[in-house]
Order: sequence, then C-alpha cells, then structure tokens
Amino acid sequence: MAQVKESTDALDLLRRHGQRLHEYFLVIRGRHEAAPPRLMEAIEYSLLAGGKRLRPALVLECCHACRGKSASSQASALAAAAAMEFIHTFSLVHDDLPAMDDDDLRRGRPTNHKVFGEAMAILAGDAMVTMAFEILASDADSTVVAAMVKELAHASGPEGMIGGQGLDIDGEKQSLTLPELQHVHRMKTGALLTASCRLGAMAAGASSEQLSAVSEYGRHLGLAFQIIDDVLDVTSTPEQMGKATNKDAAKGKNTYPVLMGLEASQREAHHQLQLALDALKGLGLAAQGLRNLARFVVERDA
Amino acid sequence: MAQVKESTDALDLLRRHGQRLHEYFLVIRGRHEAAPPRLMEAIEYSLLAGGKRLRPALVLECCHACRGKSASSQASALAAAAAMEFIHTFSLVHDDLPAMDDDDLRRGRPTNHKVFGEAMAILAGDAMVTMAFEILASDADSTVVAAMVKELAHASGPEGMIGGQGLDIDGEKQSLTLPELQHVHRMKTGALLTASCRLGAMAAGASSEQLSAVSEYGRHLGLAFQIIDDVLDVTSTPEQMGKATNKDAAKGKNTYPVLMGLEASQREAHHQLQLALDALKGLGLAAQGLRNLARFVVERDA
Repeated sequence: MAQVKESTDALDLLRRHGQRLHEYFLVIRGRHEAAPPRLMEAIEYSLLAGGKRLRPALVLECCHACRGKSASSQASALAAAAAMEFIHTFSLVHDDLPAMDDDDLRRGRPTNHKVFGEAMAILAGDAMVTMAFEILASDADSTVVAAMVKELAHASGPEGMIGGQGLDIDGEKQSLTLPELQHVHRMKTGALLTASCRLGAMAAGASSEQLSAVSEYGRHLGLAFQIIDDVLDVTSTPEQMGKATNKDAAKGKNTYPVLMGLEASQREAHHQLQLALDALKGLGLAAQGLRNLARFVVERDA
Repeated sequence: MAQVKESTDALDLLRRHGQRLHEYFLVIRGRHEAAPPRLMEAIEYSLLAGGKRLRPALVLECCHACRGKSASSQASALAAAAAMEFIHTFSLVHDDLPAMDDDDLRRGRPTNHKVFGEAMAILAGDAMVTMAFEILASDADSTVVAAMVKELAHASGPEGMIGGQGLDIDGEKQSLTLPELQHVHRMKTGALLTASCRLGAMAAGASSEQLSAVSEYGRHLGLAFQIIDDVLDVTSTPEQMGKATNKDAAKGKNTYPVLMGLEASQREAHHQLQLALDALKGLGLAAQGLRNLARFVVERDA
C-alpha cells in the first residue's frame, strides 16, 4: 500500500498539526467537566482563538525529524505540543493585562480581560499553566515525563519566558545595548521556541547529536522570530496582525529596528535563518518540514 | 545507640519542618542565579515571609505516617513540600492583587504588588507555579514524578484551587447555600490540603489503604481549616492575623459564620476535626504528628 506523502510545505504543516492539536484540545476539555464553566470559557476563548500554532508544530516536526515514529513517541509529542500551546497562550493572556502591556486586541478579537474581566483573565492564565503540566504528566510516556516537565518548567520560568518578561518590564525604563536586547529576547521568546524543539526531540528518544541539532535550530529560529516580530510591529497594519501595531516605539521599547534600523534587522533575521538551517544538516530529509517552518517564520507578513 | 525522640507537638513540628524547608529554599535559590534579580526578590519576598508552612508540614508528616523512611522517600517528600509551598504562595500573591481581593497587608507586611508593582507581582506568582513543577521534576524520585506532577497540577488547577477562586469570584455576587459553599471551599482550600497529604503518602510509597486514610484526613482537615479561617476573620484583630480582618462580611462573601452562625461554625469545625482524627486510626503512633497538627488547625487563634 503506497503511503500518502505528507506535504512539508509550512502552511500545510501548520494546518495539519493545528487540526490534530484542536482535536486533542477537545479531548482535554472532556476531562475538565467538573471545572467552573465560566473559567473554562475564559480559557478556551484564548486557547481556541486560532493563532499559527507554531510552537506545537515545532514540537511535532522535531519529533518527526528525530525519527520518533512509535505510538509512545507520538503521544508524548502531542502532549508536549499541547502543553506548549497552553503555556504560550497563558503568557499572551497575562501579557495583555492592564498591569502589563494593557492590550485591547489579540488575534483580531478583544483580549481576554476585556471579555471576562481582569480577575478571571488572571485565573484563566494561571489555570493554563497547571493544565500544561497536567497534560504532560497524564499523556506523555512515563519514561520522559520528568525530563519534559523539567524542560518546560525551566523554559517558562525565571530563567526563561517569565524571566524575560521581568527584564522587559525593567528595560522599558532604559535603553538596552544590542547584546542586552538579545539576552531579553533569548529568554522571552527564544526559551519556549527552543524548548518546543527539544521536547519534540525528547519525545522521539533522540540521540544527543539530534538533540543538539534541534536545540541550535531552535535558538537561531527564536532570534529570527523575535526580530521579525519587532519588524512587523513597525511595517504591518493592525488588520494584518490582529493586534495593535507600532506600540513598541510608542512605549519606548527596545527593539531591533530601534537599535539597528529596519534593513539591518531584516538582514540579521536572514542570517539567523541561515544558521538555523545549517543546524539541521545532519538530519536529512526528515527535517524538511523544519526548514520550511523556519523560512515561513522569517518571510511571514503577520 | 538511642534515637532522639522527635516531638510531635504541632508547634515543634511546624518549626522543625519549616527550618528544613527554609534550608531547601536556599538550595533552590542557588539554582536560579541567572534569573532577573528583581523577579527573584519579588518571589522571595513572599516565599520567605514566614507563614505557618502548614502544607509542607502535612506533606512531611504524611510521609512519616506512611513509614516513608528511605532517602528517596525523604527527598521526594521534601520536593513535594517545597512545591506545595510555592503553589500556595503563588495563590496568595495573585489573590491579593487589586483585580482580585485587593489586599494591602499579608503576614503583617505590605502585599507583593504594593512593594514590587502589579506587573512584577503577576510575574512572580506565575514564576512560582513553574518553579513548583521544576522542583518536583528535579528532586523527587523519578518513579513518582509523573504521579506527583499530576496530583499537584490537578489540585491547583480548574477543578482545584484555581477553580475554587473562579467560583468564589462568581459567588460574591450571590448567596450560596451551605452545600454550595462547601463545594467552593473543597476546591479553594481543601484540594491543596488534601493533595499535600496525598503527596506525602506518595513519597512514602504508601499502600492504597494508607493513601485513602490520609486523603480522608486531608479532606476533613481542609473543611475544618476553612471554617476556622472564616471564624477568625470575624473574631480576630488584624494584628493577630497579619492581614485585614472582617473583610468577608464587608464584601458580602459567603462564609460559614454568615450561613450558620459563629457557634454552629465552631461546632462543625470540631466535628470535622473528629472525622479527620478517625481517618488516622489505622496508622498508629506514626500519625501522632498529624493528629496534633489537626488539633492545632482547629484551635489556632491566627
């Protein structure tokens, strides 16, 4: 029986993995019927609001690139993909709060606290964190749970995403040098993107060479992603982005375009893309999806 | 060699376990030297603010009551005790936020957001959740990590503490019946207290009978704890409690004293205490610390 060849085109990949993730989210919903309906509604409002689902796709494609084909590898990768999206969504909900970035619009809709109130938005974000770890502990293969929980917690915590947010808050009041900005970005965005790649590799039972390769890919992709995010904040319209744009400059935020100009920023993003692609050299054809995702990240316009 | 008999007196226990926990917190601090100093300061401001450390003591005493004497049992119990205190402290920091209970005073000091600002208090709380799971995954015995992460996540999440907070927010606008109030309390306070007991038993590799016994103990203790908390809000001074009192009535909150009167509330707390003690019958002398902790919870005046 001829196997249907699955496309490695980035948009196809994102759509296919996004669909799988959505079905899994419905399974997870079914486990939480005893939870307060309004809280679950607030959680799902943000979780099911669409978005590119880039991080889950990275988890699943890194598992694929490291030849994780067994049922248990697939289950672990799916659990990690979902957990990662819960953590990412939690960070958006809390980021948008009045005390943080004070945003009214996200993915083209009113932000969580605009709809459910600040208290419920805080709780919804909190709950998404605990749910992420519950998913890993429930559905990932028991041999990888401890390592996965540690990886996700570390990448989300004070040395990772949350730490980056903390630096960002402090940094708003002062000008950063380029290395300082890179340090903030590595924590704020890079840590979760890199962890997505590593969790996929861990699900596959990757060799240390494979794990190093996808980690390096993730690091460079993370930087490229954030540079392009900063660039798009300047060059895009709110309609394209589904959220307010040009906010960084207005708030005096440190960004790549501010520190090195638009053109140099774009060059740097492409340089990071090349380094990300180089990191995949040893992984052969199975990493084709990852290559296309990296190009998509740098060439996207929203 | 005669073994020094350790006191099972509640205050002695709390002091001894609290000291062990504090030393462990300093070890954990050493692992986070790469984190932003201001964020760590905000975390430690609340984490090291004292408090009774009741939940960690329950973890450690339940491990003891289930005869968890091996080095790996002890390590798992200590990790779970610390994780539980991180989760409990996170919940206090977020609870005190202006959008939630809007409290200025906690444990006799200004609340976290009063000192560090709302944004940093939100991040500090968020970070404490991820750190709790990182501690479990790093330091608990690998054979129990998955079960412990699942237990802690479930007890903290939408069917547990955070869910209870969500119900509480909704409930402020309406009168609850006694069963409805009990349901809120079972989630809001009971879930974490019960999970503390269960994590201790899990660390000990408890039998299913032992696990059931400490679970039942935890459930009744949780109810007794919350009733007494409600009672103390009416009968204590802010100086005794280290936080504002009489806030519940002012906010129209549903409490035991409001629904059944002070005297009947106190009787109910003692009834729950008796049920908690009954649950321990099969555990013998090793559960003496748990018995004393339960009496302490009901007879405390702060």
